[in-house]
Amino acid sequence: MADTNTRILLASRPVGEPTGADFQIETASIPEPGDGQVLLRTIYLSLDPYMRGRMRAGPSYAAALQIGEVMTGGAVAAVIESRAPGFAAGDIVNAHTGWQSHAVLDAEDLRKVDPSLAPISTAVGVLGMPGSTAYFGLLDICDPQPGETVVVSAASGAVGALVGQIARIKGCRAVGIAGSDAKCAYVRDELGFDAVINYKTQNVPDALTEVCPDGIDVYFDNVGGQTLDAVLEQINIGARISICGMISEYNHVEPELAPRPTRALLTKQARMEGFLMFQFADRHNEGRRQMAEWIRDGRLVYKEDFVDGLESAPRAFIGLLRGENFGKLIVHVGSDPTL
Amino acid sequence: MADTNTRILLASRPVGEPTGADFQIETASIPEPGDGQVLLRTIYLSLDPYMRGRMRAGPSYAAALQIGEVMTGGAVAAVIESRAPGFAAGDIVNAHTGWQSHAVLDAEDLRKVDPSLAPISTAVGVLGMPGSTAYFGLLDICDPQPGETVVVSAASGAVGALVGQIARIKGCRAVGIAGSDAKCAYVRDELGFDAVINYKTQNVPDALTEVCPDGIDVYFDNVGGQTLDAVLEQINIGARISICGMISEYNHVEPELAPRPTRALLTKQARMEGFLMFQFADRHNEGRRQMAEWIRDGRLVYKEDFVDGLESAPRAFIGLLRGENFGKLIVHVGSDPTL
Repeated sequence: MADTNTRILLASRPVGEPTGADFQIETASIPEPGDGQVLLRTIYLSLDPYMRGRMRAGPSYAAALQIGEVMTGGAVAAVIESRAPGFAAGDIVNAHTGWQSHAVLDAEDLRKVDPSLAPISTAVGVLGMPGSTAYFGLLDICDPQPGETVVVSAASGAVGALVGQIARIKGCRAVGIAGSDAKCAYVRDELGFDAVINYKTQNVPDALTEVCPDGIDVYFDNVGGQTLDAVLEQINIGARISICGMISEYNHVEPELAPRPTRALLTKQARMEGFLMFQFADRHNEGRRQMAEWIRDGRLVYKEDFVDGLESAPRAFIGLLRGENFGKLIVHVGSDPTL
Repeated sequence: MADTNTRILLASRPVGEPTGADFQIETASIPEPGDGQVLLRTIYLSLDPYMRGRMRAGPSYAAALQIGEVMTGGAVAAVIESRAPGFAAGDIVNAHTGWQSHAVLDAEDLRKVDPSLAPISTAVGVLGMPGSTAYFGLLDICDPQPGETVVVSAASGAVGALVGQIARIKGCRAVGIAGSDAKCAYVRDELGFDAVINYKTQNVPDALTEVCPDGIDVYFDNVGGQTLDAVLEQINIGARISICGMISEYNHVEPELAPRPTRALLTKQARMEGFLMFQFADRHNEGRRQMAEWIRDGRLVYKEDFVDGLESAPRAFIGLLRGENFGKLIVHVGSDPTL
């Protein structure tokens, strides 16, 4: 067992795109658990777009990281030492360890992961936060109906890939927007979307018109920006738009200006709603159970994009914001005892 | 009885603010009703902001007016001659006559007005389209809860004045935004709003902060533009914004650019929804009954701003878009037999 804790801190607030210099890697002593706490060893660290928001000063839905704080992040971890009832060394848990090799957390903030259900890495993917985001964001916020056209951006990403597949399971037509021919081929051929648009090589408004001949009933928005503007021009009466993220805007120093969406929302009697998966905290098990069943039945597939070693996290995260990952981005921090 | 029909046509599509030259007044022979139709004499013509949208080319929620067409508009009218069962000369009806002194309409497009219920002019105001817009737009789209802060723009207007009063009836705190000290005094002192902002003399973001110390839970938006942008910065978690109109933008030649509302909607898990009162067509009686009861009980007051003569309609309509009216704007076209 390692005798030091490797951790990555926020060194400075990025202006625009983050650089390696915005992160600082350091070693510290391994913390000791108090009563009701457990010491964890990180196995899989999740990298997610929302982390860019935490690096920014000022209020958001969660407090900003302070300079010198460990970067925030969810992970799959193994219990090394437990001083809390219900947890024992060797247990696998889903926990908010942050970007570090070891962490001490209160037992109440842990969720046990059942390694017999699926590979444990899925606890930060399809059976974790991205899965709940896709499941509740699509089904509860957008209420898609059979035969409707559902468009999702970042369609090969951790959330988007699930959204389109769930839409199809619910009898909808799924249209994805992604950023490379390889991603588009994956979305169409392996995930089974009905159509896909490469926003880097195609004119998005024209392509939407072509592949959504009946208009757009639901848009699950992961990217914001001009893709959202284009979708708004082609929504149907009664359309629902869930605002899950706006990764195309996260590195902007000043907000981009655009025509207001209100005219489209008014004339189409349409709805645009922001959500966070925390809203559905008391129903995560429901979503997880359903997703696990669809996986077992072969109706839902997922893709993980692993990078090796905690020290790779900053570079991988910068790439995530550029769309360089392909599937759910996970840092393999420590050995997986279930493999 | 007049033996000619005076009518006002769309002469040209306005670029920016409409001018008198965009309208053409003419006389024509009085049309004759066919089977199932009635001949109407217009008494009160309603002038409403939505009409600006009809003067624009291109699709919206309703077809654009063609050049040379009679300007669209709802009215209170008297039946002169009926060739339809259920209607007789002398009946008072609510009908979409357009901007003209006489009209022939199918009986199925008429709604009888009961003169014993309230002054018949209210059939184009508090007991008509603006009333339904306020009632359903606030209660159904925004679902205001007791104790919440409800902000409404164009607060002395036909819709806004009702929205704030209904909000207070439902136990909310009502905050109005209006465009003159006289309107603000009316909104506060006669309509009983809890607070009011004069957007022409006050800094709206600062004023909102001052009069909404607990943030904004509901915004009923009649004006769009920078007022909406300012409200978005101060919404609470779970806020609901109903998009009813955007009068501040109707005369724009190009859409104004603004920061997208998506960041505010996401971080506050908030909802923005456009609506048209047609959505609630099968429930208009419900709204009308409730509003009439509140009027009888003295809980709901309304203000009408009459102008005389059909030939005044263009000038009055141009003034409406500038906010020059004070209360529900109505053109008194012909004599009211109930007075």
